[in-house]
Amino acid sequence: MTRIEYQQCIDACVKSMDACNYSYISSLKEYDLASLRESIRLNRECADICSFAAQAMSRQSPFVVPILRLCAEICEACAAENSRHVHTHCKECIKATLACAEACRLITDAALAHA
Amino acid sequence: MTRIEYQQCIDACVKSMDACNYSYISSLKEYDLASLRESIRLNRECADICSFAAQAMSRQSPFVVPILRLCAEICEACAAENSRHVHTHCKECIKATLACAEACRLITDAALAHA
Amino acid sequence: MTRIEYQQCIDACVKSMDACNYSYISSLKEYDLASLRESIRLNRECADICSFAAQAMSRQSPFVVPILRLCAEICEACAAENSRHVHTHCKECIKATLACAEACRLITDAALAHA
Amino acid sequence: MTRIEYQQCIDACVKSMDACNYSYISSLKEYDLASLRESIRLNRECADICSFAAQAMSRQSPFVVPILRLCAEICEACAAENSRHVHTHCKECIKATLACAEACRLITDAALAHA
Repeated sequence: MTRIEYQQCIDACVKSMDACNYSYISSLKEYDLASLRESIRLNRECADICSFAAQAMSRQSPFVVPILRLCAEICEACAAENSRHVHTHCKECIKATLACAEACRLITDAALAHA
Repeated sequence: MTRIEYQQCIDACVKSMDACNYSYISSLKEYDLASLRESIRLNRECADICSFAAQAMSRQSPFVVPILRLCAEICEACAAENSRHVHTHCKECIKATLACAEACRLITDAALAHA
Repeated sequence: MTRIEYQQCIDACVKSMDACNYSYISSLKEYDLASLRESIRLNRECADICSFAAQAMSRQSPFVVPILRLCAEICEACAAENSRHVHTHCKECIKATLACAEACRLITDAALAHA
Repeated sequence: MTRIEYQQCIDACVKSMDACNYSYISSLKEYDLASLRESIRLNRECADICSFAAQAMSRQSPFVVPILRLCAEICEACAAENSRHVHTHCKECIKATLACAEACRLITDAALAHA
């Protein structure tokens, strides 16, 4: 893959990292904090792998495909957990993580088709 | 600082990380590799701190100001080293790292003025 | 600084990262979660910079001194916040973060003395 | 898995990160730099995933198993590349990365057996 082909997925990863971290700090301020424990935990997990994946693509890592497969898996788990909550930051997070998972799958599916 | 106020600096950090990593892998392919040793090393340093700074802003870290001060310092050192080389990827990297340093300084200077 | 001279500080950073992350996940399970919001947040901050600092030393980064200065500052802030709580994992975290801060200061002070 | 069960693998990841980064900076100083391009690149890849995996275990990430599977894969690729070179730092790196891969597989195999 070339630099340009990765660009859309890098953008999606950065947006997902941003939405996860925003939901993370917002959840820590919520009144119903106790019900958001798992959400806080998964938001951090997801922010970390999205940040890692963005860097991996930008240095054209030879391991982009397995890294993006992992990133998509964690994004989807994070979206599933956030879908159990009603806060606006949770809903924004679902949108960004699912968009990121989709962008990752586009690349991993293409790699599979060419294998 | 609010989420919106950080957005421009997050974007600058991500662009700088991307340009540094692109220059890093491009340098590793160059014929004059031996003269690019220090450039390769600083490109990685700079990509890592830019990525770290972007995450820190997105989680509204209480340590954003010292983190961005460090990021600006490393960006400027990376730009200085790249200015000794003539490759297009080095020149693109200088532009992105200096823009990032400037975006970081905007925030750290504002914090100083309010202190 | 040589590889051997950094080793003690790398070990202290890794132990601090480990203690912070353990306190982070333990706090998320506590009954008095609401009083631990700031502790959770600082534990993550501290784990992230300790991990970053350990890698920076292991690659003999030219920016080790300002990175360790930042790391010491965040470790001390994390210890101060954890000292407001009585859980065992908070107390273990204070010990590890203060030991890390001390190991960082040994290196940054030595650098200052040689400057 | 508990904190104690992860400890051996965290140690192996940190040692592998350290050996990879040492081989990375040592390679950048070598006379036969041109033949070490791929080794430099994989050493950085491996250091980054080992650092990421160590943090993931220390925060008892729900994604430890796929993260360690990825880490083992990258460690083995890094060892294979380094086995093409004769420098002492390459040989030390092979040892540390293969030990890390083995420690990761112990956990991922155990998870598979319990699935």
